[in-house]
Amino acid sequence: MKIGRIALPSPDGSVARLVVVQPEKGRVIDLAAAAALHYAAKGHATTEAARRLALAAFPGSMAQALATGDYLLDHANDVVNSRSDDASLSIDKVDWLPASDPPVLRDGLNFIGHIKGWSAKMGREIPESMRVIPGYTQMSNSMTLGHNATVEWPGYINRMDYELELGWVIGRPGRNLRPENALDCLFGVTLYNDFSGRDLQGNELPIGMGGTKSKQFAHGIGPWITTKDEFKDLYSIPMEVRLNGKTIAKGNSGGNLWGVDEVLAYISLGEWLQPGDVIGSGTMGGGSALEHDIQIQPGDVVELEAGGVGVLRNTFGPKIEGLWWPEKRAPF
Amino acid sequence: MKIGRIALPSPDGSVARLVVVQPEKGRVIDLAAAAALHYAAKGHATTEAARRLALAAFPGSMAQALATGDYLLDHANDVVNSRSDDASLSIDKVDWLPASDPPVLRDGLNFIGHIKGWSAKMGREIPESMRVIPGYTQMSNSMTLGHNATVEWPGYINRMDYELELGWVIGRPGRNLRPENALDCLFGVTLYNDFSGRDLQGNELPIGMGGTKSKQFAHGIGPWITTKDEFKDLYSIPMEVRLNGKTIAKGNSGGNLWGVDEVLAYISLGEWLQPGDVIGSGTMGGGSALEHDIQIQPGDVVELEAGGVGVLRNTFGPKIEGLWWPEKRAPF
Repeated sequence: MKIGRIALPSPDGSVARLVVVQPEKGRVIDLAAAAALHYAAKGHATTEAARRLALAAFPGSMAQALATGDYLLDHANDVVNSRSDDASLSIDKVDWLPASDPPVLRDGLNFIGHIKGWSAKMGREIPESMRVIPGYTQMSNSMTLGHNATVEWPGYINRMDYELELGWVIGRPGRNLRPENALDCLFGVTLYNDFSGRDLQGNELPIGMGGTKSKQFAHGIGPWITTKDEFKDLYSIPMEVRLNGKTIAKGNSGGNLWGVDEVLAYISLGEWLQPGDVIGSGTMGGGSALEHDIQIQPGDVVELEAGGVGVLRNTFGPKIEGLWWPEKRAPF
Repeated sequence: MKIGRIALPSPDGSVARLVVVQPEKGRVIDLAAAAALHYAAKGHATTEAARRLALAAFPGSMAQALATGDYLLDHANDVVNSRSDDASLSIDKVDWLPASDPPVLRDGLNFIGHIKGWSAKMGREIPESMRVIPGYTQMSNSMTLGHNATVEWPGYINRMDYELELGWVIGRPGRNLRPENALDCLFGVTLYNDFSGRDLQGNELPIGMGGTKSKQFAHGIGPWITTKDEFKDLYSIPMEVRLNGKTIAKGNSGGNLWGVDEVLAYISLGEWLQPGDVIGSGTMGGGSALEHDIQIQPGDVVELEAGGVGVLRNTFGPKIEGLWWPEKRAPF
């Protein structure tokens, strides 16, 4: 199943809705609307009670919906089978929201090709530590973007970049997992664009606390989530990135340092994987503009594509100028 | 005002409640209970309607409560003035929850004394970058601990540590702020214990993505939040850390590289500060066991104290053994 989030107008302003996506039929199914019809027509609920039940079952928050466990997919199947024709919208006309609203957004570092390519371009040695433990980081979750959204480009970033990644979406909570059981917590796969300000990384990396202003301005998540049962092999998913319609890199999800099972188990050590969490797979080799010496410009359109998922398209907006920036401190 | 969170039993299990804290009177006031009494007795609401209004006004989530803006403190004042005697609990008998449930938890690096002390003990040069931009990091929010909670000690950490920090709690949303207006988003001050596994930092730091297994197992936040109006000067708050009752370090909140106004403005660049976010101030000089060559043992009790806030006490639990750990990869 493919499941995503859209915005719909309401008397109180825009509201988020969960949708089942059927690209082959060119439509999405509004789950809360379909469910309300289902409860009312087939289960004899009153209209008001049917709406209340429908929004409890299918809230606009993907994290809240995933927290209902097996109920989500079981129930979505029932509702889609029952009333999909009465609650469909054209796939081309909907306003996409980020496919999840992650309690914690993380990003990995796992493709050997990108580790080599990035390190060469940044003039950095590959530390032995990257072979000792899986590298990953926590992100801020306040600037997630959905399909077709515009990246708000902070003026302090000169060398803008995209990064082609898959996003592993967590369904079940899990802590202190082992590789043998970690994939039980994986709900599905989306695309993740880890937008980056390359020129800022030179100052952030030596501090050793992870990316801050180089990373936290935009995180593309979408267009939707494809459940894990639709993938035969998590390591042979075709991946591609296009800039203004031109293919820049093509590859697949293989060539990793660590298995997805190991990455999820490692992240779960001592802390919880929470329903709705998104974990970037790390960038595919060649999956950044940096690796091709390409300079991103305002107005450029980047498309990430993954087989079995779809296309996540975002446009770089104009630079936001006039922002404050700190002044360098004296030696201490 | 001092405001925190406690757990209360209910027919459906433990529920979180917002409380106003009056240490001088030895009590906390359950805001939802006081509000329900207030609406029913003074406003003629039915009991059911009064409870519904009360829980909407004072939810158990600090992030949701802070998102109501000025309404929270204005309304809490009314309710406390009206019905505090009828909704009080003894301060010594309540079960404390983390003072906030932060949408994003961050941690700064700002005390010159700690930067020097930590770098010396870890054998690391202080990078010039720390004087160019404020260093900070994003944390996972799944392992926050309240006052009196036990730290679950993952067995892969040998050199356990605490860190004495203040926590800046965000009230209003803000983005692309400047130092001149950034403090408008500050709601109040709490204590933050940035528990750390020192022996893991050696592998995590060279990767450059911030702390992962060395940091994400425990974040002490509490005992409650004191609103900013109660502090004359954010840079002269007395701070102290005790281990098993013995004072290990004493100082204050001064001696920083960056002002709180600058830290908040910098973090807000390109992304949102969200109500309920907690930002660790960075560790006070001498505020870690590392700086004193002290080895933490299971059963040790650490108390952080800050003038105008209170004491955050946590106990180190037994080591959790038998956890999975990744195997080192071959060179590539």
